[in-house]
Amino acid sequence: MTQHEMTTTSPSSNSQGAADAGEVLSRSTDAASLARSVARSAEIEADLDVNPGRYRMLTGVRPTGNMHLGHYFGTMHSWKGIQDRGVDTWILVADYQVITDRDGVGPIRERVLSLVADSLAVGVDPRRSTIFAHSAVPAANQLMLPFLSLVTESELHRNPTVKAELEATDGRAMSGLMLTYPVHQAADILFCQANLVPVGKDQLPHLEQARLIAQRFDKRYGRAVKEHPVFRRPEALLSEAPLLLGLDGEKMSKSRHNTIELRMSADETAKALKKAKTDSDRHITYDPEGRPEVANLLTLASLCGAGEPQSLAEQIGDGGAGTLKRITTEAVNEFFAPIRARRAELAANEDYLLQVLADGNAKANAVAEQTLDAVRTAMHMNY
Amino acid sequence: MTQHEMTTTSPSSNSQGAADAGEVLSRSTDAASLARSVARSAEIEADLDVNPGRYRMLTGVRPTGNMHLGHYFGTMHSWKGIQDRGVDTWILVADYQVITDRDGVGPIRERVLSLVADSLAVGVDPRRSTIFAHSAVPAANQLMLPFLSLVTESELHRNPTVKAELEATDGRAMSGLMLTYPVHQAADILFCQANLVPVGKDQLPHLEQARLIAQRFDKRYGRAVKEHPVFRRPEALLSEAPLLLGLDGEKMSKSRHNTIELRMSADETAKALKKAKTDSDRHITYDPEGRPEVANLLTLASLCGAGEPQSLAEQIGDGGAGTLKRITTEAVNEFFAPIRARRAELAANEDYLLQVLADGNAKANAVAEQTLDAVRTAMHMNY
Repeated sequence: MTQHEMTTTSPSSNSQGAADAGEVLSRSTDAASLARSVARSAEIEADLDVNPGRYRMLTGVRPTGNMHLGHYFGTMHSWKGIQDRGVDTWILVADYQVITDRDGVGPIRERVLSLVADSLAVGVDPRRSTIFAHSAVPAANQLMLPFLSLVTESELHRNPTVKAELEATDGRAMSGLMLTYPVHQAADILFCQANLVPVGKDQLPHLEQARLIAQRFDKRYGRAVKEHPVFRRPEALLSEAPLLLGLDGEKMSKSRHNTIELRMSADETAKALKKAKTDSDRHITYDPEGRPEVANLLTLASLCGAGEPQSLAEQIGDGGAGTLKRITTEAVNEFFAPIRARRAELAANEDYLLQVLADGNAKANAVAEQTLDAVRTAMHMNY
Repeated sequence: MTQHEMTTTSPSSNSQGAADAGEVLSRSTDAASLARSVARSAEIEADLDVNPGRYRMLTGVRPTGNMHLGHYFGTMHSWKGIQDRGVDTWILVADYQVITDRDGVGPIRERVLSLVADSLAVGVDPRRSTIFAHSAVPAANQLMLPFLSLVTESELHRNPTVKAELEATDGRAMSGLMLTYPVHQAADILFCQANLVPVGKDQLPHLEQARLIAQRFDKRYGRAVKEHPVFRRPEALLSEAPLLLGLDGEKMSKSRHNTIELRMSADETAKALKKAKTDSDRHITYDPEGRPEVANLLTLASLCGAGEPQSLAEQIGDGGAGTLKRITTEAVNEFFAPIRARRAELAANEDYLLQVLADGNAKANAVAEQTLDAVRTAMHMNY
């Protein structure tokens, strides 16, 4: 599971409610399906400007640590833009997902509040958008029970993410929460009637699972009103996240301490970048294959507005790693200065962060209770 | 899964929180554990008269059909007695359990209301006892998520009930809801802080699972207050249910139409009993091994106050199956007449039944929200 999940898949498979989900989920990343997903995502992307009111976007983040530049350029940078186009924007703090693959919650409260501060700092406006916590919405979590009746054990097993996680955990016994992860993620997406979920390609199967559950619910349990299914159909907004490596040239990961966090000061950023791995060739070139660490710093500086990586490299020339790091540090610090200033202000006001979350939780609960009412009506469990 | 579940197990295994649950659950029915469970149950049974206020009893029923004499003599007959001794009595209408092993909910609303009527008719007093529906208590159902983090997939598999169900379903794919059945049953028991669950011996592993989850929660996530764990320790009240067969001599089952339902009229009861299978020997004897169908009617008449099966048989002598059926019919109809009269009155007043359920749901929700608050505090998810 990556830090920014929430998933989706090929819009092609909308008639496969009764099909084997394992197959459908695998197919969702094949070339043809992927091409359709990409095309459909582009269509939606264009429609967002014309009909923003048609969409509710949900994105989720696991609060397993502090947000870093990988998160920012991977997903967070787009939140404000989508919100400002008029799309109803929902940000899920997926706190229960923290314990899918670890034995404790860690400093969960600090991390959740830090995530709220990060979200507001990058431009999420709590008057227009909704930030809420998974554990705060019982009516959404209750959907686990009817949803679990709609998937088989073998489907859970063949879900690519569960499979990958199982392999990644290296023999560690899989918890029931990890096994049922695709189902509670479906509950997260479906309860709030989100119809748009920004994801990377590898996360397409998740959204397909949510879609399958929604279809099966409609087929098996029916509707609250004749005119439409209980659950809206979630679609993928595919994002091309730039591949940012950690400062040691490895996969960026909080546990490797190879990240630059949003909340870091300019000095901390400079220190971290000073220790970044490069190579022994003083002449800077942009060669992602041959010189991944150098290319990574060029990419980072470029993302922060320092120009194209190629021309940046030419500009540095024989300046060496020192110049590269200085330019990157300046670019990062300049780019994030306003975000960090807002963040510092926000982080100092815990009461405000708690209020933002409380308001978001209340809004999520209201929608969840409405959805659960419709679920009860469809299932004839109104008593 | 039988009609009246809710489970428990050996009080011996209280230090096995970290042990493999599969083993613990299997052990819970071995001879030594069983003996301890029986002894502990007898101790509790005696204490109920002295300290009824120490106990909250939870029992659950799946609303898969109308309640019949098997349910009555198996479990329902004891509800009023326990309640009248001053024990806080909770009756769960386990509506979500209906879909663990079937594709639809059936006429769920009628069945739930019928079950409420049955409960009240056998003497459950809604001013003192709580009747509530599984689907009406989101805060209880949310416990599924943290609880699923406390069990491994292989433990779920080795749960004897899941195993048995898997074998009974004859290759039909197991749903996620069936696989996680021990976990939502644990949530049902633990959310309301029940410490007493009436069960048959074969259901001991269920309560053991609930107990393991409670222990593990305490160990892994800690407490809301230092003094005691978030969840009370549920114990078994073992009941010796008489073995009643269906009227065809087979296992009693609604789908076989071999039951006498609580709601039947005296005439319907007479008709059903007239069709009961017996044997060709006119001389009536009580021989459960050799003449199970005849013995079954004698047992039924006896349960309904017609005297000991043995002496009843001697009394009928050469009167044959006709006399046996007449005497059984009279005994059943006389015994159930007051219950059925109350039931008819109650069933005619749907508004009242809905009100009883609404009150119970409200009470269950209040307790569930309190428990969920403690869970959030223990997990540091208070925001």
